[in-house]
Amino acid sequence: MDTVDISHHTSQKYNAELEGVRSKVLTMGGMVEQQLTDAMTAVAEGDSALGESIINNDFKINALEVEIDEDCTRILARRQPAASDLRFVVAVIKTITDLERMGDESERIGRMAVQLASRERPKSQFSELRHMAEAVRQMLHDALDAFARTDVSAAVSTLSRDRGVDREYESIMRQMITYMMEDPRQIPRTLEIMWSARALERIADRACNICEYVIYLVKGRDVRHTSQEQIREAFGEDRS
Amino acid sequence: MDTVDISHHTSQKYNAELEGVRSKVLTMGGMVEQQLTDAMTAVAEGDSALGESIINNDFKINALEVEIDEDCTRILARRQPAASDLRFVVAVIKTITDLERMGDESERIGRMAVQLASRERPKSQFSELRHMAEAVRQMLHDALDAFARTDVSAAVSTLSRDRGVDREYESIMRQMITYMMEDPRQIPRTLEIMWSARALERIADRACNICEYVIYLVKGRDVRHTSQEQIREAFGEDRS
Repeated sequence: MDTVDISHHTSQKYNAELEGVRSKVLTMGGMVEQQLTDAMTAVAEGDSALGESIINNDFKINALEVEIDEDCTRILARRQPAASDLRFVVAVIKTITDLERMGDESERIGRMAVQLASRERPKSQFSELRHMAEAVRQMLHDALDAFARTDVSAAVSTLSRDRGVDREYESIMRQMITYMMEDPRQIPRTLEIMWSARALERIADRACNICEYVIYLVKGRDVRHTSQEQIREAFGEDRS
Repeated sequence: MDTVDISHHTSQKYNAELEGVRSKVLTMGGMVEQQLTDAMTAVAEGDSALGESIINNDFKINALEVEIDEDCTRILARRQPAASDLRFVVAVIKTITDLERMGDESERIGRMAVQLASRERPKSQFSELRHMAEAVRQMLHDALDAFARTDVSAAVSTLSRDRGVDREYESIMRQMITYMMEDPRQIPRTLEIMWSARALERIADRACNICEYVIYLVKGRDVRHTSQEQIREAFGEDRS
């Protein structure tokens, strides 16, 4: 397994600072994962109280983003990190931006849950959305896990699942367009479902961003605008 | 006017490096602005060739993002910037992420232009979208200008225009839902317009992010999760 050990400095305090940042990122990631899970439950079960609680919890994620950003700037200023430590700090600054935006997308789904709770809800339409949501949540979970273990192979394998999510998204969109055309009275509620699917698709994209930062952190290579085939070829079999 | 002078080091080379980064960010911003302008022209005039050219040009913006990111990491490693220089580099790392994603949104609008070009296009539906697009392009332009001049007042004033864009967005959405309900055959093309409006709304949000980074850069204060009222109160009248 290809990892980077960030706890190797003679200064115990510096080690503790880097580990503290890593631990906060994982806490933030866990909060976002919980918000996403709750948002989907709220949509599927028409639970507007749960939807409201997601909206009210978003500030905690925002506060943690600001805190971690300050930690990173302080480390850059005082410790003047180099090599993999510097890449770690830069990767964290980018990762928390994506996590915060995933939190915003989850909040949007929470808002749609509140809207949807007041309308008729044919259950069948939610089963595909729930399936997609579970795939996305798992991607986020695995991306955070790859980050926690600085594991390139796990990052590459998580990245490769984005296409499946995209296909589920396209399928839901086509189905929703059919519903709308068959019964125009359903247009407003069907649009809410479409926006939710769109938010999920964006969360999956951001989970991929985190995987790309993990590869950058470990390998020092920026793979953001590289095709999945090229990434797999370069790093996919990496089990050194 | 409240500005930060980044060109004040005894090392001419360091000054040149920081100025080089600033200049590349502005080049990248100009490219995104052009892509957005072209995307809206392509939608409104049903110009699928222009739509295709936007899709084909996105890689240039991506390449510049990677290049600027490398410049920033190099400056962090070699120059170990402090105080406002460090904030400048951190603000740039965040700004180019937003610019790159705005480029992606413009590319999405370009793709919708290609789709829309093959369908009937009642001109009337595009006038509101064009109006919104022009307001968003102007916000992006002014955000980049605030960045170029590290001008907090300009950043605060640009931020305050986001609400107007949100209102235009809501109005377009309501109108499109009405169109769809009146004529379900128009659903697919109306959805393309809705996605375009959504992309524009997100570009405006990202222009606001850039304004917030300008405030952070100059004032050292993170205002990302602060209300517009609080921002105006703290910095709005700042002409020192």
